[in-house]
Amino acid sequence: MTKIFQPFSTMYEFDSGALNPQGKLISRRLSDMSSMYQDSEAVQALLNDNPLIYEVYNVEVPENEEHIQHCTTILYPGKVGSEFFMTKGHYHEIINRAEIYFCLKGKGLLIMQTKEGEFSSLEMEPGTIAYVPPYWAHRTVNTGDETFVFFAAYPGDAGHDYGLIETEGFVKAVMEQAEKYALVANPSYRKENEIGE
Amino acid sequence: MTKIFQPFSTMYEFDSGALNPQGKLISRRLSDMSSMYQDSEAVQALLNDNPLIYEVYNVEVPENEEHIQHCTTILYPGKVGSEFFMTKGHYHEIINRAEIYFCLKGKGLLIMQTKEGEFSSLEMEPGTIAYVPPYWAHRTVNTGDETFVFFAAYPGDAGHDYGLIETEGFVKAVMEQAEKYALVANPSYRKENEIGE
Ligand SMILES: [Mn+2]
Ligand SMILES: [Mn+2]
Repeated sequence: MTKIFQPFSTMYEFDSGALNPQGKLISRRLSDMSSMYQDSEAVQALLNDNPLIYEVYNVEVPENEEHIQHCTTILYPGKVGSEFFMTKGHYHEIINRAEIYFCLKGKGLLIMQTKEGEFSSLEMEPGTIAYVPPYWAHRTVNTGDETFVFFAAYPGDAGHDYGLIETEGFVKAVMEQAEKYALVANPSYRKENEIGE
Repeated sequence: MTKIFQPFSTMYEFDSGALNPQGKLISRRLSDMSSMYQDSEAVQALLNDNPLIYEVYNVEVPENEEHIQHCTTILYPGKVGSEFFMTKGHYHEIINRAEIYFCLKGKGLLIMQTKEGEFSSLEMEPGTIAYVPPYWAHRTVNTGDETFVFFAAYPGDAGHDYGLIETEGFVKAVMEQAEKYALVANPSYRKENEIGE
């Protein structure tokens, strides 16, 4: 019998979201996905700095149905115009393969769609375990102001298909809106030394 | 086309290690695995109280290769004689299916073996991502004094085979040893009021 695959472990670093050993590291800058953002003037203005949008630390295991692929993603906070930093997004090459996202830090939105145009989204915060079922393309978006980090696990044979999303785009974009609350003057407030005047 | 599986999320509770919603909850007491511990007198003495050894919160998804099974395990601290509380342990029914354990709380040992008698172990602490490769039976042991909690993900079609471990047992048992350090008198220490006497 050929020697079988041996057990091993990887350390997740809670502060940074990185893995140790780092495995296969993928870094995506704005120039790697500039056509995916809505505001092309904002893209042009940022391309000089070419900000780092996200990093993926991939533990390397064989790409077949025996194994489980796993990685952490660090999605940095920021916007291109009013559109939040996001991942490229993809279908799986074997399209009926699911994926689990476990949020460990920060907050974000997981947006998903099918080839039939069905759309879904899930909010993520630390402790959220999101299930991307078979057939759903998936993209994550950092809607907060700190790094958004999640752990992912998916079948060893799933693979990645980025091409269709590059061509079609996602059904929806995630844009900043007005603040959800505002601090307004309280009309009944009186400063202490004004009381009784 | 039949309606496809819809996205959903589950909340991991960082304090307890439980899931919300809880999914399918499995609770194992000493009476569910009394023959697995070495010290049968200690087992008998504890069976009246019948302590809760561990709980598994399982998110329910279909059991086929499209999906990823996922769960959290809460393994309580304690001993049966000098043997630490542990899970039953199992091979996967489809034996060449891997599994990932992500430790979130406490500390423990993951012990593994193959049908050929090869043995391996990995220490786990918060942040440890342990990889159980295809063909390895796996059991976790709480070697600390607080609850040991980990998140697990494995292929949807893996299944569980507890029978062989019930018959054979594991190659090694995890027993408490003498403390790793001891506080001994420092021979050069002098109380302040003894100095110069
Ligand atoms: Mn994926
Ligand atoms: Mn298992």
